[in-house]
Amino acid sequence: MNFPTISRPQIQSAALNQQFVRNCWYVIAWDHEIPADGLFARTVLNEPIILFRTAQGITALEDRCCHRLAPLSKGRKEGDAVRCGYHGLKFDGAGQCIEIPGQANIPATARVRKYPLVVRNKWVFVWMGDVDKVDESLLPDNYSCDSPEWRNIPGYLHYDTNQMLICDNLLDFSHLSYTHEKTLGGSPAIAQSKARIERLDGPGPRGIRVSREVPDVPSPPFYNRFKNYTTNINRWFVYDFVLPGTLLMQSGGRPVGAAPDDNSDAVILHSCQTVTPETDHSTHYFFQQSHRSDTGNAEITQKIYDMLVLAFEEDRQMITAQAAMIATDPTHKMIPIAADAALNQFRQLVRRMVEAEQPQV
Amino acid sequence: MNFPTISRPQIQSAALNQQFVRNCWYVIAWDHEIPADGLFARTVLNEPIILFRTAQGITALEDRCCHRLAPLSKGRKEGDAVRCGYHGLKFDGAGQCIEIPGQANIPATARVRKYPLVVRNKWVFVWMGDVDKVDESLLPDNYSCDSPEWRNIPGYLHYDTNQMLICDNLLDFSHLSYTHEKTLGGSPAIAQSKARIERLDGPGPRGIRVSREVPDVPSPPFYNRFKNYTTNINRWFVYDFVLPGTLLMQSGGRPVGAAPDDNSDAVILHSCQTVTPETDHSTHYFFQQSHRSDTGNAEITQKIYDMLVLAFEEDRQMITAQAAMIATDPTHKMIPIAADAALNQFRQLVRRMVEAEQPQV
Amino acid sequence: MNFPTISRPQIQSAALNQQFVRNCWYVIAWDHEIPADGLFARTVLNEPIILFRTAQGITALEDRCCHRLAPLSKGRKEGDAVRCGYHGLKFDGAGQCIEIPGQANIPATARVRKYPLVVRNKWVFVWMGDVDKVDESLLPDNYSCDSPEWRNIPGYLHYDTNQMLICDNLLDFSHLSYTHEKTLGGSPAIAQSKARIERLDGPGPRGIRVSREVPDVPSPPFYNRFKNYTTNINRWFVYDFVLPGTLLMQSGGRPVGAAPDDNSDAVILHSCQTVTPETDHSTHYFFQQSHRSDTGNAEITQKIYDMLVLAFEEDRQMITAQAAMIATDPTHKMIPIAADAALNQFRQLVRRMVEAEQPQV
Repeated sequence: MNFPTISRPQIQSAALNQQFVRNCWYVIAWDHEIPADGLFARTVLNEPIILFRTAQGITALEDRCCHRLAPLSKGRKEGDAVRCGYHGLKFDGAGQCIEIPGQANIPATARVRKYPLVVRNKWVFVWMGDVDKVDESLLPDNYSCDSPEWRNIPGYLHYDTNQMLICDNLLDFSHLSYTHEKTLGGSPAIAQSKARIERLDGPGPRGIRVSREVPDVPSPPFYNRFKNYTTNINRWFVYDFVLPGTLLMQSGGRPVGAAPDDNSDAVILHSCQTVTPETDHSTHYFFQQSHRSDTGNAEITQKIYDMLVLAFEEDRQMITAQAAMIATDPTHKMIPIAADAALNQFRQLVRRMVEAEQPQV
Repeated sequence: MNFPTISRPQIQSAALNQQFVRNCWYVIAWDHEIPADGLFARTVLNEPIILFRTAQGITALEDRCCHRLAPLSKGRKEGDAVRCGYHGLKFDGAGQCIEIPGQANIPATARVRKYPLVVRNKWVFVWMGDVDKVDESLLPDNYSCDSPEWRNIPGYLHYDTNQMLICDNLLDFSHLSYTHEKTLGGSPAIAQSKARIERLDGPGPRGIRVSREVPDVPSPPFYNRFKNYTTNINRWFVYDFVLPGTLLMQSGGRPVGAAPDDNSDAVILHSCQTVTPETDHSTHYFFQQSHRSDTGNAEITQKIYDMLVLAFEEDRQMITAQAAMIATDPTHKMIPIAADAALNQFRQLVRRMVEAEQPQV
Repeated sequence: MNFPTISRPQIQSAALNQQFVRNCWYVIAWDHEIPADGLFARTVLNEPIILFRTAQGITALEDRCCHRLAPLSKGRKEGDAVRCGYHGLKFDGAGQCIEIPGQANIPATARVRKYPLVVRNKWVFVWMGDVDKVDESLLPDNYSCDSPEWRNIPGYLHYDTNQMLICDNLLDFSHLSYTHEKTLGGSPAIAQSKARIERLDGPGPRGIRVSREVPDVPSPPFYNRFKNYTTNINRWFVYDFVLPGTLLMQSGGRPVGAAPDDNSDAVILHSCQTVTPETDHSTHYFFQQSHRSDTGNAEITQKIYDMLVLAFEEDRQMITAQAAMIATDPTHKMIPIAADAALNQFRQLVRRMVEAEQPQV
């Protein structure tokens, strides 16, 4: 028997259906994810994209054959071209069809979209907006992803939620005290401390700078994995959160009483994290947390990564539950509190950018 | 690759989207389900609710933090209060926010809904309607759930269907002959017998009384688990089915020829069952079937429970298949038959109550 | 906790929501699928149908009790009748209710729809349209399904896609070179060869005839399973694709240089395949590929079947991926190529038939 299953009503939420900024760079992959001689597919902003390596570097094309709309990623790479696995149409690295089996003439319209692409510090960025507005100055400075001075293990998580709830999360670190009490947090003092919020109006990508000092707290479970502080420490978090959704953070801690420039017993970290909408309801999350190459070793690199994965799973569970709750009643109002300042400013910035990108009437 | 799955079309059925009576008591849990020192979450009438024990007894709050709408049930109980596990807001047993980390002033609007709650005979009831209309006289008399004179094992089932189809089922016992032929039924005579239908117009919850005598039939498989009748028996079923969806039933059987007041070789049972809508498309089902404490033992209590679970699974499969079939064509007409009398009266009562609860213009 | 899951938006595609031709025969089952003494349920054109054997042969009724709409297939066969497993209504082979337990009078409206049915060469056909227009001359000639001159193993696949994409697939064999390179294809020459397209305007079911010769190619992996050609071969495919979606094909190959009528070392096959919409979004696919009984043995019959299953799974994966891609943007245009001639003609024929079946105003 074949009974249709009864689906729950489709609930659309303003909070979950935020439109996307398009004229900016989105991370689509870590460089190492693209195979040397094969095809890699990932959806960004609801658009299916195929990535492969050519003599000119990594190429990003629309992953949809122009003929009958089969995914090209189910075909095969042939040199610097890709051939559809359904009826055999072949496309060059510019997206132009260069072979239709059994047909001499190839219409100029037989092509797929090509996306501007930049690889910078191991992140593969695609430009999802107007090709006339491509602007490399809008790339975030993710230097620690690929620097001899820093060490990390690259990470990736998939979310079944819209990206704005993840941006919210990254813009209010008060949750470290509760969601991450047993991992990154370790003290209610983080939530009780007041963050300084500044606007970043360029040059470079626009966004928000958040700075927070948390003096005289116990070393968190995170640090305890690789440090043995015998006293309380002073902690700090200073990060830029820039469009479309990238966190670039210096953070660390040193024993209470140590001079502000004394790094002899300090934890010094740099983290790059970025959220890329996959669809209206799902998100890619790329991240790494680096320590200085001149301190620590491979074991510490691994421990930092392991704790980060544990903590980000705490976030994912909380945000997924939050998104499901919002979906039960998308009209339910949120009560604002002081800690929302940064996320409100960022949401406002996104709204303004989205509006500015709408066609002028 | 991430392809959206193609969902079946959303089919909305009048039969499946009955509105709910709100000014009445719904069972949200068995008392024993609420942990001594933790949080318990369950959705009723599409509303997420969190239950926990305080000095004042079990408390029912909206399971949605007023700040960013995360479920409070992912937080923790702190004494008689609950703290959100996302950004740490704390709520007392009245639903008022009493702490916002890092913020001195707490707006009065920072609160979550509190639901009136009564525990009666091990059932935990919540009032889903207007708090000004709370009325304990509308509680059903589920006495056998907690009485020294009766013994039972409490049961719970989850349905992926709307509750009205389950109410229909409970209001027409002709299905015992077919759906439960090998469990509760055992004879087509149940379907062939005529039920007496009466209205219950209060005091107490309104509803329908259904009485049915089934003389001279073989003992059903159900009874045969714990009785060895050597002759046919006379069976009876007398139950009240009251708003919002609670069955309170005396049933039993005695050997043909035994006097109507001779219980020496009789089966005497009392059952309490109630359906509570979880969402528009899913339902909680709480049940127990008791025998007299002065007859039978723990083994018989267990056998009655086991047979009930088996039989209610027969119902669940039939009703789930019926709901799926209705969903394939929600406009399909039902042909009424005589056996529908009780369910039609109850559906009419529900409609009238729902209409009476609509805001007056 | 019970959080509704967030579903992806319901995307409706013109390509996926093609209406169905109704006044024609659809294969609902292989004859052997219907049990000797039981009930068999299958949905066709969104209509749930129950099949069972009576003294008059296989009977097809609406699988939905007229009373409370439970599926009859959850009941039981009683002689030449079927009894609903919910409240016990009984229906004869004409779909008329002949018993309502506990009720003397049976309204004439208490009946379920009966579908005209023909069993022809092991395929069970139902007529889904106007009973006044039943026309056995519209049955396809699926002779090799049941002929002493041919041997095959019957096959069935279920698709989670609309049937038109499967018809498209069967109407353009250029995909053999790519989708089936390692199974049925073996050479790009199939895609490069030009097919002859003819209309079939009756008598018999209307459709398209596709003829293709592919000279001087290596024997494909398919043939290599049971033949050892030492030279290239000439291959041919000649098939009728008739309404509503049935392929009837002669195909084969013989060594280059052999006379066109020399079958001494030839592969000679006949195939019958048919697609039957289950719902708007899912499809039944019945198939067999026969070899001549006077060549080959049971091992070869099995090898042909195994390769067919392997190849049809290649199709299913490609078409399912294509359907999912179309669903991401149902407005995306397809770029036509020469190889689309047959499928375009067939789609046009379907459109005309669907339009002709619309009620006249």
